[in-house]
Amino acid sequence: MKVLIVGATGTLGKAVTAELGQRHDVIRAARSGADIALDIADTTSIRQAFERLGQVDAVVSTAGTVKFADFAEMQDADYRVGLDNKLMGQVNLVLIGREFVPDGGSFTLTTGILTHDPIRYGSSASMVNGALESFVKAAAIEIGRGQRINAVSPGMLVESVPNYGPYFPGHDPVPAAKAALGFTKSVDGLQTGQVFEIF
Amino acid sequence: MKVLIVGATGTLGKAVTAELGQRHDVIRAARSGADIALDIADTTSIRQAFERLGQVDAVVSTAGTVKFADFAEMQDADYRVGLDNKLMGQVNLVLIGREFVPDGGSFTLTTGILTHDPIRYGSSASMVNGALESFVKAAAIEIGRGQRINAVSPGMLVESVPNYGPYFPGHDPVPAAKAALGFTKSVDGLQTGQVFEIF
Repeated sequence: MKVLIVGATGTLGKAVTAELGQRHDVIRAARSGADIALDIADTTSIRQAFERLGQVDAVVSTAGTVKFADFAEMQDADYRVGLDNKLMGQVNLVLIGREFVPDGGSFTLTTGILTHDPIRYGSSASMVNGALESFVKAAAIEIGRGQRINAVSPGMLVESVPNYGPYFPGHDPVPAAKAALGFTKSVDGLQTGQVFEIF
Repeated sequence: MKVLIVGATGTLGKAVTAELGQRHDVIRAARSGADIALDIADTTSIRQAFERLGQVDAVVSTAGTVKFADFAEMQDADYRVGLDNKLMGQVNLVLIGREFVPDGGSFTLTTGILTHDPIRYGSSASMVNGALESFVKAAAIEIGRGQRINAVSPGMLVESVPNYGPYFPGHDPVPAAKAALGFTKSVDGLQTGQVFEIF
């Protein structure tokens, strides 16, 4: 299978690339430093990448940023960062990518544990993750042509503990390689409309 | 209690006004035709309404629009309608309103059954509802000053069956007066970070 991995240079993206690369022809995308340049915040960039690649059997996203800050400081513009990037960036990968994915192809997006298990500074992350999870469930019943769409919701990654550990008190970190299995379940399996929680 | 009801002229808003008006000093807000003009899509309008009203003990929102359309037709701009209005409109009521709500005061937003039980044409509604529900859970742990925040998630309203019934196959409609009880639970109770599902 030809699999596009968007966000391939990140911590999770590298693990997903290693996991899916065992069996598939993987194309690594990122804003820079990968096989192909793709910025999910820019629909033109998304379209250009797909036009350059042509058909891909599976689109995987491990990309997306949100603003982490004290709720007392968060204003409209702060929430827009995550809505524009992690939410609509990943959704636009689906909206544009569906033209380039064959019947039976799949989309796999990334959410995260904060949907249901919030932390201090995480109100935007929770918002975006919740939006993505409900979007995936709804889009899956309408997408047609046998295309499938799922999300993977990882816990805090072991590899992220040095940077983010103190912000996730009591969270049991998950190795990125374990979180990557959720993407295999989505890409190589047959389920759709699912959120694979790995935490 | 002085309770601001935003979206008070709508089907659910009227029922919530009747329910809360039995015990509280209710101020009805809507874009037009209510006690005070307030457009949730416009942060200036929100701020002006609060400045005019001064302190309110509870802010209730039954407002918010999203675009319903076939997923095949939905593009970035179509999702932005719901993100700008039902999502960030309600979130901005909290972000701005928190200055005008006393210690222990409450916010109650409206989501809906499509978070978990999607329908054709409903991918934006599901996205927005999921975002709001996770936001409420996350904001509740950070909001401080004993302020509380909850959501009410009603099923399709009995009163909406003539217009929307065919789009909700198999859904058991809920009287608006029953859905309104969720707002009483939030405003007059003590819970926070909850989604009161009434369907």
